[in-house]
Amino acid sequence: MIDFRALADKYGTPLYVYDFNHITERYEQLKKAFTGRKSLIAYAVKANSNLSVVSHLADLGAGADCVSIGEVQRALMSGVPKYRIIFSGVGKRDDEIEEALKADILLLNLESEAEMSRVETIAERLGVRARISIRVNPNIDPKTHPYISTGLHENKFGVDIETAKRMYIHANNSEHLEPVGIHFHIGSQLTELEPIREASMIVADLVRSLLAIRIELKFFDVGGGLGIVYDDETTIEPYDYAQAILGTLHGLDLTVICEPGRFMVGDAGWFLTRVLYEKVNEGKRFVIVDGAMNDLLRPSLYNAWHKVEVFGKSGNESEADIVGPVCESGDFFAKDRPLPPTEHDDLVVVHSAGAYGFVMASNYNTRPRPAEVALVEGRDRCIRQRETFEDLVRLEKMCL
Amino acid sequence: MIDFRALADKYGTPLYVYDFNHITERYEQLKKAFTGRKSLIAYAVKANSNLSVVSHLADLGAGADCVSIGEVQRALMSGVPKYRIIFSGVGKRDDEIEEALKADILLLNLESEAEMSRVETIAERLGVRARISIRVNPNIDPKTHPYISTGLHENKFGVDIETAKRMYIHANNSEHLEPVGIHFHIGSQLTELEPIREASMIVADLVRSLLAIRIELKFFDVGGGLGIVYDDETTIEPYDYAQAILGTLHGLDLTVICEPGRFMVGDAGWFLTRVLYEKVNEGKRFVIVDGAMNDLLRPSLYNAWHKVEVFGKSGNESEADIVGPVCESGDFFAKDRPLPPTEHDDLVVVHSAGAYGFVMASNYNTRPRPAEVALVEGRDRCIRQRETFEDLVRLEKMCL
Repeated sequence: MIDFRALADKYGTPLYVYDFNHITERYEQLKKAFTGRKSLIAYAVKANSNLSVVSHLADLGAGADCVSIGEVQRALMSGVPKYRIIFSGVGKRDDEIEEALKADILLLNLESEAEMSRVETIAERLGVRARISIRVNPNIDPKTHPYISTGLHENKFGVDIETAKRMYIHANNSEHLEPVGIHFHIGSQLTELEPIREASMIVADLVRSLLAIRIELKFFDVGGGLGIVYDDETTIEPYDYAQAILGTLHGLDLTVICEPGRFMVGDAGWFLTRVLYEKVNEGKRFVIVDGAMNDLLRPSLYNAWHKVEVFGKSGNESEADIVGPVCESGDFFAKDRPLPPTEHDDLVVVHSAGAYGFVMASNYNTRPRPAEVALVEGRDRCIRQRETFEDLVRLEKMCL
Repeated sequence: MIDFRALADKYGTPLYVYDFNHITERYEQLKKAFTGRKSLIAYAVKANSNLSVVSHLADLGAGADCVSIGEVQRALMSGVPKYRIIFSGVGKRDDEIEEALKADILLLNLESEAEMSRVETIAERLGVRARISIRVNPNIDPKTHPYISTGLHENKFGVDIETAKRMYIHANNSEHLEPVGIHFHIGSQLTELEPIREASMIVADLVRSLLAIRIELKFFDVGGGLGIVYDDETTIEPYDYAQAILGTLHGLDLTVICEPGRFMVGDAGWFLTRVLYEKVNEGKRFVIVDGAMNDLLRPSLYNAWHKVEVFGKSGNESEADIVGPVCESGDFFAKDRPLPPTEHDDLVVVHSAGAYGFVMASNYNTRPRPAEVALVEGRDRCIRQRETFEDLVRLEKMCL
């Protein structure tokens, strides 16, 4: 039981709190699921990029899946060895490609022919051979798997199987490209095994057909997708997930790369905010807190549901919205939730805020971003200081 | 005609560009609309809080409508006199209230009885009398005016007329509260005059009934609401808007306060981003640019439509999505737009990006926020430097 009240008193609110022991458990659970096969758990830095979070995972042996050169820099600064760093994403600038090649990271994950052409040009200029993998869209019929909400057609990610094959052949013949891996990712918060197995099988078949023309890949990157429980979602067990994938790799000597983000840190984080006051408008009850959409955007942006509790209080509940001070109707954390009566300074705990929480925070309404605190073996430690007004205007003040 | 290409070359992309002359025109147009009546144009800082933008408006004579103590600090730093600064918003922390009272700004806009009680307590502790106004919800039937999308019932803003009257009487009898104004705001991007007139009439009637019990207000704060044209929206002329309001104030000696945000800066700003590459997935064309949802969130958050153009190119158009490098399907600037063929490094100009653009930017995916540039009398000047990786990790690195 975490004493959120003591943490709020010590560090102020709004505040992010992460339990590093929970992250450790998640890492080990997933690593163990792939036992018997070479594997690399490459943490998806975008979920929570705090240097101390990444450093904690690096100490456990994790690699880093990065989607910008900034994330690559974070990974390096956090002690992730360069040979465990992957640079993914649909849009890489020339300077990002150049810096990644100079840093000699494990590989660049490519998502289009045009991108491959940029990488080849830049690798040639630098006189290096770029290790690449290609993100393949296994094109599983979304009709049979409607839970893959983004669908697989008509999105910006990856290339189809035929394009991938053409790209591998081109890369294999290039002096400046070295195809070493293959990548796919069919969606987040997956709830069933079958589409994973199906996608994995399709991609493994592509690996085999490449092998037949002597293009030998080393890395089989299955992306992310393992979910967490926010409300009452069905999730997949890591072991079952790993077995579904490994079962498709018969006869192939591949290192499996897995890129969990939310799974690793989502449940390990809480967002703490204090009650300012309550009000009732036209019979509707509002609990106004000191945190806002700028601090935790998920409810506003995705209409995401987070469990909330008024710390240490219960009983006499009535429905209320928990809203922030930002001047937008969309600034809320929870709607129509049964909550006990609250008073000024009561503490509201928002659960499952470890992933896509702080990383999406902004300074909207000139609100300094919250501090972040880690719990390690029961001790608390600040891992990012609260922003001050001076931090917010530094880059403008010098221009005034 | 602005040479966006030269600006992109000089300052890099992604980039925000603002035309200060355009802001001047808008300010003067609105100020003139209220001719014949004392008025204060209090710029809604939340729309674009760059110190140089606020300073430009301060030089023109504008006040500042602020929704956090940070915005109050920005206004003061930008040279807005304290007697032209208003502190609004549904949720104010105790330390914000205290600081605002110490800064002796024009008034605090209150939105609930509980908030008034906090302000009274703090004013008493400081031994001052807090100048306040109350945000009234004029409760115009949203059925007759369905375009007021937030509705007026069941939102967190303001108090009803009866509550307001009770609050004014309490405040007037308090040693530590001085009721000086009244405030209402019926919505953004208003397209018709009638609801404005109606709301204004209801609130003016409340002013008269307060006068009858010797509560004499000085400020009639009509909020914001004037829109801009993103696509083909109907907007209201400032003159008509002002006259609709002034027509309801017969016999009342009030200074009108108006709080334009979007109207003042929306059209005066552009977001510049460069093409990285194009790709086609399943017949769908994507133009991938170096800007992303972290830089300009409106399309992702509000599904907002912005005019886009490929600078200096035309002809041979086909439909495409303009998307950013962030790993989300929601990372887009435009969908299904006719666009000419683009090449690496082509410049895409996103129009009407002056309001709720940079202020909502985040560092999601470890992307440094863009620079901001002002055009003043045809000359360009950096008003906020581009963030660096070091800026992003400063507050974490010291904790690592």
